[in-house]
Amino acid sequence: MRVLAITPNVAIDRTLDVPGFAAGAVWRARSASVVCGGKGINVARAVIALGHTATCAGLVGGHGGRLATEAAAAEGLQSAWTPIAGESRTCVIVVSGGEATVINEPGPAVAADEWARFVADVSRAAATADAVCLSGSMPGKIAGMAIVDLVRAAARHGAPVWVDCSGEALATASAARPFGIKVNADEAGALLARPITGWQQAAAAAATMVADGVSVATVTLGAEGAALACGAGTWIARPPRLRAVSAVGSGDAFLAGLMIGWGHGDRPDAALRLATAAGAANALQATARIDSADVTRLGAETEVFGPVRAG
Amino acid sequence: MRVLAITPNVAIDRTLDVPGFAAGAVWRARSASVVCGGKGINVARAVIALGHTATCAGLVGGHGGRLATEAAAAEGLQSAWTPIAGESRTCVIVVSGGEATVINEPGPAVAADEWARFVADVSRAAATADAVCLSGSMPGKIAGMAIVDLVRAAARHGAPVWVDCSGEALATASAARPFGIKVNADEAGALLARPITGWQQAAAAAATMVADGVSVATVTLGAEGAALACGAGTWIARPPRLRAVSAVGSGDAFLAGLMIGWGHGDRPDAALRLATAAGAANALQATARIDSADVTRLGAETEVFGPVRAG
Repeated sequence: MRVLAITPNVAIDRTLDVPGFAAGAVWRARSASVVCGGKGINVARAVIALGHTATCAGLVGGHGGRLATEAAAAEGLQSAWTPIAGESRTCVIVVSGGEATVINEPGPAVAADEWARFVADVSRAAATADAVCLSGSMPGKIAGMAIVDLVRAAARHGAPVWVDCSGEALATASAARPFGIKVNADEAGALLARPITGWQQAAAAAATMVADGVSVATVTLGAEGAALACGAGTWIARPPRLRAVSAVGSGDAFLAGLMIGWGHGDRPDAALRLATAAGAANALQATARIDSADVTRLGAETEVFGPVRAG
Repeated sequence: MRVLAITPNVAIDRTLDVPGFAAGAVWRARSASVVCGGKGINVARAVIALGHTATCAGLVGGHGGRLATEAAAAEGLQSAWTPIAGESRTCVIVVSGGEATVINEPGPAVAADEWARFVADVSRAAATADAVCLSGSMPGKIAGMAIVDLVRAAARHGAPVWVDCSGEALATASAARPFGIKVNADEAGALLARPITGWQQAAAAAATMVADGVSVATVTLGAEGAALACGAGTWIARPPRLRAVSAVGSGDAFLAGLMIGWGHGDRPDAALRLATAAGAANALQATARIDSADVTRLGAETEVFGPVRAG
């Protein structure tokens, strides 16, 4: 399978090792590592780890953008970047003992003509994709309807488009009726304006999104698992208990597994199982990475129930 | 006066506004601002604010280095950078309410031939300087004696060389007998292997450094003030009580005032007064900046005592 993973707000991820870190005072990082960052980049890495092909698309600009794209090329990621004048943002991940502190910057301003070029680039790259995902935040201030153009451009050649974003961007992207939505409980709660704290509510939320016009909706609940709804019904999955090292990137690995499972024509429960196992496998690593052997093992240990009655 | 301000480990300073920041969890910065960073850069800004001329020297590399040098040029800083292959580091300053959390990265590796070019560049730039300062950390791992070459190159044309660094770099730089040393109480304590917690100990430490071969030594005590020792004796200064906003950069402003006061041929007590007032003026600002009107006012309110009997 060939996946096009779109990250509008590409970042440099700087991971700093700072023993004993706390807020306040001056700290000296023991080491710093730099990779190309953003949710779609994590999805692309997970797609590749699962044995498939991924191309990264996104807006990149300035010296930060060049650093990010060079880092992506150095680790072998295929790409179809769209250059902009603004400086790509930096995300800081401070690792101290087993705990991570993440600080995400808002990202650069994007001009209307830059966004138009991005939409055209995505449309072109989507022509050879079997699935497309749109992940993470929008840089600077993007006029609400601009995301609709992006979702439509991604879908133009018929590949299913999956959306994983939050807040206003999620609301607007949902209005463009993408094929699928992958959100966590907080994001789903904000979208539907109701609290989502357990399986039953997650399943109902996913079913509501399908009733509202998307083909597949998933709502993740962290270590508790996830719910998936589609025309055939609603399923819930529970991964085995595991010793999580870092959940950063687990949602992105989940989406990679979901796109691949769905693209293979698996039954909904099999796609949800692969997605849940990929998300769980990511939690075993300190950074956003998965090991396919972990996915296979955790998939066998994941419990999937359904179709269930939601709501 | 023309000051050459050397920052071996030039940085990008990213200041992030993160309301309610604490360690752990995922945060979204409300805004991010980027400037060229490093202690010598702060010194240069303070020299200019005091009405004099400054040139910045330092090792800069990669995309980060280009971003840092463009930011320096954009704010009008004169420079004589030395390019290296490694990536310049990023320093993160998280501002939350009135509190700052600073995380400094170690910096890139420097090859022997790059260091040799740096020493030659500094020697050339020092030819037109009335004073030279060497501030902050060394990038990567620099062989101990390399700093001696740098101090000697800076002093080759006769301008006084002032050193403000810490740890092993301070010990080695001191062994090269610079004209002056500016350190805080912690750094002086580490150099002399004894605790320095008050004026008497700070004055004694400064006098010890002069006895060990430098012409002028100052030890700063934060809001409490500073001590200065030279051949003519030892003085102590106490700034007025003020509502400090951020002390980040106060030591660098102190050094700028000290070099200018000393270069004017002022008496030691007058140079110490200007240095103390510049450091205090910096504490009134959220970032490392001074307002010359504040310096004048705080200078008049600063108490200077001496010559005192030290030790």
